[in-house]
Formats: sequence, structure tokens, C-alpha cells
Amino acid sequence: MFVGKMNAKDILMRAVQCDQAGRILEAQHLYQDGIQILMDLVGDESDVAKKKVFYERIKEYIDRAEQIKDRVQKHVIRGELVTNKPIDDNSTGNSYQSLFGQYLNADVKEVLLEEPYLYEKYQFQNLVTFLELLVKNCRHLKYVRVVTKTDTKAPENQSNVLEQIRADMAKRNVTLSIKFEDTLHDRKIVLSNGYIIKIGRGLHFFKATNPLYSLGLCDYDFRKCLQTDVDIWRTRNFIA
Amino acid sequence: MFVGKMNAKDILMRAVQCDQAGRILEAQHLYQDGIQILMDLVGDESDVAKKKVFYERIKEYIDRAEQIKDRVQKHVIRGELVTNKPIDDNSTGNSYQSLFGQYLNADVKEVLLEEPYLYEKYQFQNLVTFLELLVKNCRHLKYVRVVTKTDTKAPENQSNVLEQIRADMAKRNVTLSIKFEDTLHDRKIVLSNGYIIKIGRGLHFFKATNPLYSLGLCDYDFRKCLQTDVDIWRTRNFIA
Repeated sequence: MFVGKMNAKDILMRAVQCDQAGRILEAQHLYQDGIQILMDLVGDESDVAKKKVFYERIKEYIDRAEQIKDRVQKHVIRGELVTNKPIDDNSTGNSYQSLFGQYLNADVKEVLLEEPYLYEKYQFQNLVTFLELLVKNCRHLKYVRVVTKTDTKAPENQSNVLEQIRADMAKRNVTLSIKFEDTLHDRKIVLSNGYIIKIGRGLHFFKATNPLYSLGLCDYDFRKCLQTDVDIWRTRNFIA
Repeated sequence: MFVGKMNAKDILMRAVQCDQAGRILEAQHLYQDGIQILMDLVGDESDVAKKKVFYERIKEYIDRAEQIKDRVQKHVIRGELVTNKPIDDNSTGNSYQSLFGQYLNADVKEVLLEEPYLYEKYQFQNLVTFLELLVKNCRHLKYVRVVTKTDTKAPENQSNVLEQIRADMAKRNVTLSIKFEDTLHDRKIVLSNGYIIKIGRGLHFFKATNPLYSLGLCDYDFRKCLQTDVDIWRTRNFIA
């Protein structure tokens, strides 16, 4: 990852830049990385005066990272329901584009995806399909954070695939950061333009095509769905 | 197939209906099926007068089927080049939708696809992707004829998969007919609204995603391509 090649100063400078540009998810990520490096440095420092300076800086960045966390949290809690769309069992016409493509626009610079289950092949495929749509519709996209649970059966395969996807996104100048939270249950997609998409089943509400080579293999509008609910919320955006 | 359940009279009545509605590919198909049944009947008939009536009918339908064949042939030969788009090696942004989606509209009732190679998994997937686009864009689509070569290594698998795709299209009220022509080389897509799309490599000019889970897995605009040429021709439409 690029972070490994940067020192604390560069990381924190970039964090401040992102913060000022309203890219607060990326800023939070960078503050946390920077704080970690400063913590390691302070441990090696014997000069008391220098130690104090380090601690002051660390506290300042921790406060800023906490503020961002609060802001994202409030952003998610407040807001009003824009639309509710129940998806019926076996219904079609529910591709990600059809359901929420209209909210993915040039104002989206950052995206937070909370999706507990990313370890089966079809789940990786759904993630890629979702990212394809983000990259295609959001031309100023810079940062995507994916929060998911560790695959306890094949953690290596999961981290390999996610790393491949991260590297692919990096080629397109989008930083993808993967965070594992093993208590995660709820699914949501938070867009930095102020929209939040909550789907009961997260990204995974499509039935497999049967037989395999049927319409729906690539275009998810043709896929039959599992019953679930889609709620779309609107809040003030991150920057406002 | 539905044809198996119909008698010669019903088939030929339907052929005439399709012919009058300008759905000439389907009409040609039905004439040929009807002629075959009449030929079998005439062989079993001992009454000379009745035999003569049969032969007259057969000749009449053969003439009509030949006229249609000529008309399709001329349609393909005449015409003017609308656009030529060279696809460079490793270029992207060349999904079927991006290349020729604008010509797939409500005026397309029938499509002829000549694609010699349909037996590898990715080739079946390309066919399904192409059909998804047809069904989505052409809301009056009734008939698709696919001409291809027999898979000499695994003909059963090929016919099973194509039969599954045919059954799936039938559910959407589109008759898909598969014709095997083992001398086929050229690739083309003929639309009944007068457009003809000729791609040097047919449907198969996309490189596989590498690694598998990368952008391009579903959205072919992200796929790197093989070098090929796309020519789009415009002729008078079938009905005119």
C-alpha cells in the first residue's frame, strides 16, 4: 500500500489536504495511519521535550479523526427518507444501476460500503459490479472504504481477492481501503453527496441464473431477486 | 420446439402472417419447416390429383422462401458505410452497448447473427451479453437467427447450452433459431431496421479480466480488447 512508503509527516500533510478538500473518509484513514506511526516514534524517543511535542501532535490528530467519525456518524443518523422500494421475491429489473444509479454522480468523491459478507465468488462478483458502477458514474471518485467481516474459513483467499481488487482500483486513481469488523451486521452504502442506501440484504439479493447461460448472466436487471427492502436516505453531505 | 407441435397448415399460415408483418427471417424459417412437412406428406400420398395440389403448394412456398433469401442477400450486399471504428489492442470502452447500442432500437424486430465460434464458456457468455442488450434495447424484437459452426470436440455441450439459451429467449417471447453452417467464416450482425454491424473478430474481441476479480468482470466497457475493426453499414430495411 502507498501508506507504507510514506512517513508520518507526508501522511498527515496529505490527511490535512484531504480534510480541507472535504474528502473526510480518506482524511480519517490517513490521520489514523499517521497517528499509529507517531505512536511508534514516541516510544523510541528518549528526549522528554520532544516526547511532549509528539504527544501534542498525536492528541490534535486524534481529536480531528474523532470529529470526522462523529460527523460521519451524524450524517448517517440524521436525514430523511427519500424513497423506499420493496423488492419482491423473483422480481427483476433491480440492478444496482436501476435501484440507485441516479444517486451516483459527479458529486460523489468518497463512498463507505458496509457489507458483512465478502468471501463467496458471487459476493466478490457483486462487489466488482458495484465498483464498476461507481467508477463509471462518479467521475470525481477518489476513495472507497469497504468494511466487512473476516472469512473465518479462507481468510487468505479473501484477503488475496480484496487486494487484487484494491490494486485494480488504484490503477484508476481510486484508493480502496478494506477494514475488517467482525461484529458488523447492518449493510449500508454512504455516498459523500449526502445519499445513503440501505438494503436489507446488502449487495447480495440476486439469485443465480439457472441454467447458467441465461439472460442475467451479465446484466443484473434480468436476474431474479430475493425479497428485500431498499431505503434511500438523504442527509446534508459530508462537506456541508 | 413449437414447430414440432404444429401441422403444415398452421406453420404456413403463420409464415404468411410473419411475411406480411415484415418479419421475413421468421417467415423464411417457417416456410422451410412447412415445406419439409409437405414433402413428407406428398411421399405418403397415393392420389395423383392430391399429389399435384401438394406439389403446387410446395413450389409456391419454395419460391417465396427463395425470394426472401434473395432479399436478405441484397440487403446485406447493398448499403453504405455509416461508420468505421478501429479497436486498438488493449483499448477499453468498447462494450457492445458503446459500439452499436444506438442502432438497437424499437424498429428492430428481427436479427441475424453470423458468428462461427460459439463453444467456449466466454463465447457463450458473449452471446448472452449480446442477447441481453438486444432484449433490453429492442422492445419489439420477435426473432433472432444465430448461424454458427458445430463444435466438433463437444457438439452435445454446445447444443445443450444453445438450447438453454433458446428456451430462455422463448420465455421472453423471442424465437431464437440456431442454424449450423460448418463453412461459415465471416461475422456479421444484420438488424431488420437496416443496419449491419461487421466486426472482424465477431463477438469475441474482449480479453479476459486478469486477475479475475477486476473491473470488467461484468461491464465490458472496462475490458481490454484485441485489435479489430468495426464497420457499420446502413441499407434499406427488410420491409422497404
